[in-house]
Parts: sequence; structure tokens; C-alpha cells
Amino acid sequence: MTGKFISLEGGEGAGKSSAIKVIQNWLEQQGIDYVLTREPGGTPMAEEIRKLVLSTRDEAVAPNTELLLVFASRVQHLSEKILPAMAQGKWVISDRFVDSSYVYQGIARGIDESIIDGLVATFLKGQLPDKTLLLDVPVEIGMRRVQTRGETNRLDGESLLFHEKVRHGFLKRAAQDAARFAVIDASQSIESVEQQIITQLNQLIVEPSA
Amino acid sequence: MTGKFISLEGGEGAGKSSAIKVIQNWLEQQGIDYVLTREPGGTPMAEEIRKLVLSTRDEAVAPNTELLLVFASRVQHLSEKILPAMAQGKWVISDRFVDSSYVYQGIARGIDESIIDGLVATFLKGQLPDKTLLLDVPVEIGMRRVQTRGETNRLDGESLLFHEKVRHGFLKRAAQDAARFAVIDASQSIESVEQQIITQLNQLIVEPSA
Repeated sequence: MTGKFISLEGGEGAGKSSAIKVIQNWLEQQGIDYVLTREPGGTPMAEEIRKLVLSTRDEAVAPNTELLLVFASRVQHLSEKILPAMAQGKWVISDRFVDSSYVYQGIARGIDESIIDGLVATFLKGQLPDKTLLLDVPVEIGMRRVQTRGETNRLDGESLLFHEKVRHGFLKRAAQDAARFAVIDASQSIESVEQQIITQLNQLIVEPSA
Repeated sequence: MTGKFISLEGGEGAGKSSAIKVIQNWLEQQGIDYVLTREPGGTPMAEEIRKLVLSTRDEAVAPNTELLLVFASRVQHLSEKILPAMAQGKWVISDRFVDSSYVYQGIARGIDESIIDGLVATFLKGQLPDKTLLLDVPVEIGMRRVQTRGETNRLDGESLLFHEKVRHGFLKRAAQDAARFAVIDASQSIESVEQQIITQLNQLIVEPSA
């Protein structure tokens, strides 16, 4: 039986790392084989592409250069890691997938949704996650969590506006594909968030594989 | 006035390097500012992508990963080097451009022409060379030249067949876009090849820029 493919999405401080631990515990309790992975990256070559994308450089980077690099790493990740694992019956849990491109390359780089749609249609051929858990928190709460972790993060107006746009972008994606997305209210207590995630996983395990 | 953009294409041993020297001499005689460049590569970041594409690795590389990487480097090359140079009135001479993707990714990787057409339409937006010089030689002559240069090159049947397909692929591209391509018979004497190239350049200099 083909494994399920779950992606996690959300802005800063939304709690993706904690959510992954919840999923991991649940999978182990169920005795399901799984693979944890992330984007951009996920295979040695895709991680090299990630480094290329994230490294700071003097050269200006064209928005479409970044988009094509992210999709190159995604195609490699999908064909060399995600699909083979699913074919072996393993569940794949990815920290970010294609929705992050719509939100980050869309908002930060100003790339049209239609351009990303075109790449998805040609190069992913409908290989979207079975379920995408969107961890949603108000920006102020997310930012406070990031500060508590001691990570550097500017909290000026520009930064707040950017994070608001990211939050809005993810919620818009979720509204456009409500069957695939589950919006988790990540402003609640740890116990509540855990319960929301487990409810989704329990539903997913009974659904037939695509 | 906008500078012209010339690409050189052709298989192994076709004489691209000699042709570039002919063009360079001609441009200097005409007092035209120019930039010599190459693909994949042409900017520091695009050269990093080139290394990523050309390096050997244990991991299998999906054909579409390679294609997207080559287009990422091309978008960067075009927006950060080719177009700015042309805007300054410089001529740009590139050792390979998009036609090599059609031929090499198409033949060696089996990627459909329509997929490459889609990337060209979305990401190059009609920014093709003003003129593409295709240096065409019979495979046996090209291979003999490569051997004479002392470069290692297997000459078994498989290799010959591959090079025949490459030659055929470039000639097909030239037939599909006869206004942009000039097919140079590179099996002739050095003097004849030089004369064919200069004839093309003399025609190009009198054409109004796009």
C-alpha cells in the first residue's frame, strides 16, 4: 500500500517543529514506517541547491532564478526521495512543500501565482501532499515565540507587515484547496494543538490511498 | 542603441572556439563593444549552478531537475548579464544558449520539446538571440578534430549515434527558425568558415535592433 504524504506549512513561530514531533510519536505508536524531510532540500543534491538559494551574495538574484532553483530541488526531492518512499509504503512528512513557494516566492519576490501554477502542472503532475497541515497563529504570538527562543528577529513595522502577508497567503492557499488543507489553530495550548493534529492523522489513516 | 545578441551552437569539434575568435576580431575592427560569455554559466551564480549540473554524483538526477537548473542559470545570465550589456549598446556573444537545451536535454534526457517551449515562453519572454550561428560538420570530421586536439573521446557506435542525433537536432532547430539561424558549413577550410561568419555579421550590423 502506498504511504501518505503530509506537508507542514506556516509562518515563523507557528510551531512546525513541535507538530513534527507529535506526528512522529503518532506514527511510531501506529507502527507506520516514515521519512522526515524538508524543503528546500531533502536529498544531497537538493540540499546543495538549498545552499545556493539561501547563501548571501553580491550578485542580484532574479526572482525567477530563485523560483526555478526551488523547483529544481523540489523535482529532485519528489522523484528521488518522496515518491520512492511512498512506493515502499512509508509515510513522508515534509517540513514545507509547494505552498511555501506560492507564499514566499509570491509575496517576497512578487511572482505571479499563474507562473507557479504552470510549474506545478508541468513538473509536479498533480503530486501534491495527501494532507497539508497549516499551523496558523496570529503574527504577534508567532513573533513572541521566536523571541522567546532567542532567535534574532526584527520586529519593526515592515517585518510585521511581511509576516501578516505570509499568514494571509497561507490562509488563502488553504481556502483554495480546503480538501487538502487542515488549518490547525496553533495559538491554543500544546494539548489542544496536539489533539487537532491527531484528529487529522486519524482521519487520514482510514482514507484510501490515491 | 541596443547591442546585438549572438549565440553559437554546434556539436563537438564543430569549431565554436575558432568561430568566437573570428567574431571577436571582427567586432574589434568595427570598434563595437562586446561581451563574451557562455552557457550554462555566465555570472558567478550561474557558474555555481553550472558546477552543480556538471558534477558527477552518486545520486540519480531527474531529467527535469537538470532542465530546471539549466533554466535557472539561463534566467540569471539573461537578466543579470546579457540584457544589461545589450542595454549599454554592447554586443553579446554566447557560447551556447537555449538551443543547446532543446538538443542536449531533449536528446540525452528525453525531455519533450513542449516542456522546453513552456519554459521559454514563461521565463525568456521572447528574449532569443538576434542571430544563432550553427557550426555544422559531419560527425566523423568533428570527432577527428576532437581526437587531433588530444581530448579523450570514445568513438564507439553508441557515441557516434549520439553525436548524429545532436547534429540532426541542431539542424532541425535551424529549420524551425530559419530567420534566426545561420547554418555555417564548418567542414570547409578555415578561410571559408571565416568568410561565412563575416557575411552573417555584415548582414546583422545593418539590421535595425529589435
